[in-house]
Amino acid sequence: MNTEVAIGVDLGGTSIKTGLVSSTGTILYQNKYPAFAEKGRSDVLNQIEASIRDAARHAGNGSIRGIGIGSPGVVDENGVVKAPPNFADFDNIPLQDEIRRIFNLPTKVENDANAAAIAESKFGAGKSFPDFLFVIWGTGVGGGIILNRNIYRGPWGGAGEIGHISIDYKGPQCNCGSIGCVEAHIGQKYLSQRTAERLQNRPDSMILKLIGGNLEKLEPVYISQAAQKGDELAREILVEAGTLLGVALGAVMNTMDLRVSIIGGGVAAAGDFVMDAIKKSVQQHVLKPLRPDIQVIPAKLGNNAGILGAAGLVL
Amino acid sequence: MNTEVAIGVDLGGTSIKTGLVSSTGTILYQNKYPAFAEKGRSDVLNQIEASIRDAARHAGNGSIRGIGIGSPGVVDENGVVKAPPNFADFDNIPLQDEIRRIFNLPTKVENDANAAAIAESKFGAGKSFPDFLFVIWGTGVGGGIILNRNIYRGPWGGAGEIGHISIDYKGPQCNCGSIGCVEAHIGQKYLSQRTAERLQNRPDSMILKLIGGNLEKLEPVYISQAAQKGDELAREILVEAGTLLGVALGAVMNTMDLRVSIIGGGVAAAGDFVMDAIKKSVQQHVLKPLRPDIQVIPAKLGNNAGILGAAGLVL
Repeated sequence: MNTEVAIGVDLGGTSIKTGLVSSTGTILYQNKYPAFAEKGRSDVLNQIEASIRDAARHAGNGSIRGIGIGSPGVVDENGVVKAPPNFADFDNIPLQDEIRRIFNLPTKVENDANAAAIAESKFGAGKSFPDFLFVIWGTGVGGGIILNRNIYRGPWGGAGEIGHISIDYKGPQCNCGSIGCVEAHIGQKYLSQRTAERLQNRPDSMILKLIGGNLEKLEPVYISQAAQKGDELAREILVEAGTLLGVALGAVMNTMDLRVSIIGGGVAAAGDFVMDAIKKSVQQHVLKPLRPDIQVIPAKLGNNAGILGAAGLVL
Repeated sequence: MNTEVAIGVDLGGTSIKTGLVSSTGTILYQNKYPAFAEKGRSDVLNQIEASIRDAARHAGNGSIRGIGIGSPGVVDENGVVKAPPNFADFDNIPLQDEIRRIFNLPTKVENDANAAAIAESKFGAGKSFPDFLFVIWGTGVGGGIILNRNIYRGPWGGAGEIGHISIDYKGPQCNCGSIGCVEAHIGQKYLSQRTAERLQNRPDSMILKLIGGNLEKLEPVYISQAAQKGDELAREILVEAGTLLGVALGAVMNTMDLRVSIIGGGVAAAGDFVMDAIKKSVQQHVLKPLRPDIQVIPAKLGNNAGILGAAGLVL
């Protein structure tokens, strides 16, 4: 190898996935290390370092242009990581400076949803859109905003928290303490709960077969799978959820004058009918001049978005 | 006079207000012309030209740095005005180029809510805040977003339409065709309707006295006046409305990571208790890290914001 590559680190609460990425967005090599998130700062940092060293060894003669890291939590403009959920003793970590010092390479740390948004912008579904909202719909609902092919971080670095837009001021309480957040309607926990309730009157649903009749095992992935196979209840639930997501996306489009949403995360992979439901709802919830141009499209990079986006920070 | 001044034009559906503004934001002279909005393009343009000529005559020896115009409707980055409401035969007007050609001076045209936001940023309540959301709460609910002391226009020039954020996906239909918009809860028409309903059970309210018992005359300004004088029903209604506004502002704060809202428009002048109600609601509807820094403050420039903001475009 003699081309330029970058190292992309996808830091998660469970594992660290690190890859060697070409300038065109091909992952040439990747590894996976446990994150040791419950053990605190120095253990996590050691694991990150080890995963980068491993990836760097596979660069061969390739010249490493830099290291990008996508991290949960708020990341400020200097790459300081603030209180990511599920990490013990890991607040105000100057991750960017520490990694730069260790490897003496250009290093950039960014919030993970933002990194995934960058990945879709540079290498994925967002390549032809200079401006879009990237949505991760999974356990929760997160987002990253791309303006003129760059991430919009906001004055304090925390922009894109679209999961906590209230779509019903009289609605359910959210984990975050607010009322009616879209995440409190369509996040994993709430979606599973609603499905469990509905299954009581729909014993014929394929979802029940997929979880062996055990409601404890109910997870959105099974709703997705059942929907892909044509299960009616599963499709109903995802269409309803997509419609609710569209209300929040409409708020973002109206506020920032965006037109395009790119949807990532497990649930969104269920099929085109979900995208159609979201799109119809966004169109209903934006001003008329925006409606003809509204687009809602699925993300392209799936689980690799983290590594690719992190590498994209320095490519 | 020998200092630099700018001409600011506040184009409205009824009248054109044009002023001569010093670089420190003092209005040295102002006039008011009928807009002739119903007569179409050439009549409106003639009136704008006449108002500018009149203002220019009052500049004396002052050197005119340029002409700024705040216009209703969407204004693109080249100062082309698109379909402002209440104007006949006035779509896709290259207002910026036409005025520049006539007067041979630097000219800038901007949406009127954006111009008012710029005014508050340069000369008013926003002077000490590099980033804030400006809200006009009057007939409708509009907004302008200031980032790093500049207007955020969005990729298509229509950003800041915060009145059409849905705060209740099961809520009332809005004029715009969407469901549950905050404007459909607290805009002038809806606020008056709700007040009329409530007055049936509250014959003691001062609002009734202010409108001489004639519900046809009910307008938010009377609710405001009654509230200022301590009327309980009026305060209740405005606290409720402010609380609903806060839900939409929370969506904007979460999305763009802003902390400060500056509230202009007639209703907002009712008193501090409205600001407090909005603030409490915003705090409830944003993520925890944002809460301590949330500020909701009244605009400072009132009716002069239009002229000042327009002049601010070229100052």
